Amino acid sequence: MTTSTTTAPHARVSDEERIARATLSMLAEPGDPSFLGLTDEMGGAGFLHALLTEGDRHEELAAVAARLPEADGERELDRAERMGIRFVVPGDEEWPNQLADLNSAGLVQQRGGPPIGLWVKGPVRLDGLGDSLAIVGARSATAYGDQVAGDIAAEVAHHGVPVVSGAAFGIDYAAHRGAVSAGGATVAVLACGADQVYPTAHRDMLEHLGREHAVVSEAPLGGAALRIRFLARNRLIAALSRGTIVVEAAARSGALNTLHWAQRLGRITMGVPGPVTSAASVGVHNQLRSGGAALVTCGADTMELLGAAGEHLFEMPRGPEQVRDRLSQRERQVLDAVPVASSAPSHSVARVAGMPLLKVRRALSVLEGQGLVIHDDIGWHLAEAARA
Amino acid sequence: MTTSTTTAPHARVSDEERIARATLSMLAEPGDPSFLGLTDEMGGAGFLHALLTEGDRHEELAAVAARLPEADGERELDRAERMGIRFVVPGDEEWPNQLADLNSAGLVQQRGGPPIGLWVKGPVRLDGLGDSLAIVGARSATAYGDQVAGDIAAEVAHHGVPVVSGAAFGIDYAAHRGAVSAGGATVAVLACGADQVYPTAHRDMLEHLGREHAVVSEAPLGGAALRIRFLARNRLIAALSRGTIVVEAAARSGALNTLHWAQRLGRITMGVPGPVTSAASVGVHNQLRSGGAALVTCGADTMELLGAAGEHLFEMPRGPEQVRDRLSQRERQVLDAVPVASSAPSHSVARVAGMPLLKVRRALSVLEGQGLVIHDDIGWHLAEAARA
Repeated sequence: MTTSTTTAPHARVSDEERIARATLSMLAEPGDPSFLGLTDEMGGAGFLHALLTEGDRHEELAAVAARLPEADGERELDRAERMGIRFVVPGDEEWPNQLADLNSAGLVQQRGGPPIGLWVKGPVRLDGLGDSLAIVGARSATAYGDQVAGDIAAEVAHHGVPVVSGAAFGIDYAAHRGAVSAGGATVAVLACGADQVYPTAHRDMLEHLGREHAVVSEAPLGGAALRIRFLARNRLIAALSRGTIVVEAAARSGALNTLHWAQRLGRITMGVPGPVTSAASVGVHNQLRSGGAALVTCGADTMELLGAAGEHLFEMPRGPEQVRDRLSQRERQVLDAVPVASSAPSHSVARVAGMPLLKVRRALSVLEGQGLVIHDDIGWHLAEAARA
Repeated sequence: MTTSTTTAPHARVSDEERIARATLSMLAEPGDPSFLGLTDEMGGAGFLHALLTEGDRHEELAAVAARLPEADGERELDRAERMGIRFVVPGDEEWPNQLADLNSAGLVQQRGGPPIGLWVKGPVRLDGLGDSLAIVGARSATAYGDQVAGDIAAEVAHHGVPVVSGAAFGIDYAAHRGAVSAGGATVAVLACGADQVYPTAHRDMLEHLGREHAVVSEAPLGGAALRIRFLARNRLIAALSRGTIVVEAAARSGALNTLHWAQRLGRITMGVPGPVTSAASVGVHNQLRSGGAALVTCGADTMELLGAAGEHLFEMPRGPEQVRDRLSQRERQVLDAVPVASSAPSHSVARVAGMPLLKVRRALSVLEGQGLVIHDDIGWHLAEAARA
């Protein structure tokens, strides 16, 4: 069996393990946490062995074990290779190690856990997605949303940040289009098999991505796009990328499911506001309001939050500064005339300072603004900060 | 002198003090912190006395004292009364006590402090503005901004929240229009004198507000609208109200000056997002991004943040709950089979629990999601929370 070594030349993964995972991938429902968790825990070969040897003793394993004869991982890997599709598994150099975060991110709607493996078509490597940006949003996006998603995708892609999205109408499509137009890398993560086209209207786009970028799926080859698979797929979009940005999402949009995964995974979460009169922005505004996402308005904002290379903003470290250093001579003179404990009215301070009343009062306002003096019912006294 | 007693029947303010403050109001530049601070500290009569007796000894006071003969507060109060304008001062029942917060809010561009008094035209009382909403924003608002400002003003006004704004084109006008249309109260705070009209295109609106609502100014009667007076005026809009909302503001809009005052004063600060492609929303987005304002999208949002009557949201207090109470019987059974200290793999847990492997693995995922068990390299052990 040369498939695995051909497509993953530096793999530290044994052929047995890759074939076992391919077999399991054919039997598992994407994001099934028990199935994925046991594979992760026992290894593909270990869990497959348990299925083969103990399948008849455990009722639930028996159902899976009964389907084992249908699933020939080795043949599937050959078939995939003929379609230009590789099967990337944990241990491969190309494996995106950030997916391990799915181990502790829990479940959403009974989906979760790291995938058994990923079927990938296209030259973009998954291990280069650690700094990527997921751009998600409404299928029924407005022209505004399409424009903004495309612009942000183009700007980040131009700066070398790969884009990750789905393959739906609306924001997903606009994101890929933007990244492609900027000559950057973009990856579509599908709910159906990596060899399938859904929606069929996006055949041209998916074929282009499969040739020049990457199309990725956890679902077995030939797998259909089921609702539950979109929920499982969303966690992969969030987990593969460093941050997720939502551009337009109605109140209960599926795009918010991806954002929730990004939150659970501790990824950077962002949202683009829109007109408050637009239903397509309600879900985003809810997230921005609750602190579930940071407000971004353009690619530069996004890059800054992602902390993308060369875009970090540093606050210059500053040495300790004496408060008096910042004051004018007159302000220092007045400060020195303000009593420490008991308070004195302005005209007493003026008398002590030997300065005109209005000038003194002006200086006192400045000093108060800097927290150096405090105004009470009687007059003025020094603040704690001024005594240091 | 009957002016003051007629227009402020329950005043605890002496005629002498009111007249002194009217005189000082004619001499002071709105928001001059020294002048206002000395009046606040010494009282109007006290500071006027100092001007009269010590004016020749202090150079700066001398300039003011020299103008004293021009300023006859008593005659000005009579003149104001003939125009239907009252002069509200600290100590009056109608005085908005929240303005005292200006004492400790410092200076912005050399303006600050509580006003000497406020010239008011119209039936809306200033002491009813403690729960009011300031609505500010761009003069060159878009149709979107006008619509949203008007809608929010109408909704809060309908619920009894007075609106406070300026009298400019754009958002100010839309806010008054919205409040008036909803039959609510609305107040225009002017940079010019309360008897002046600026901009002149808003004569009808200002006359209507002066008849049915209120027009307010710190500037002396006849005073012109100067740039520096807008800066002083902005602090009053922020200080009079419980919260300030910005609807559209370009990057360096004057409306942001009012928002900064609201921030300094510890008021509730809010902003309405817009299309990121609109220059009129850039200043608002900057504030929302930096946490300078909370995102609101409608009147209901705004009311909730203002904590307006009847709109408070309470979290129902809940008694302590045993974590095990929330679990299914199977989950409890699995939890009991998980070791406390050293870890065990799923199939060990399954053997201990006497349950099928897949069912156990599913239950472990649920328990992990609730923070009751922890998954490590070897297997599973109890989390701290499950030991309690």
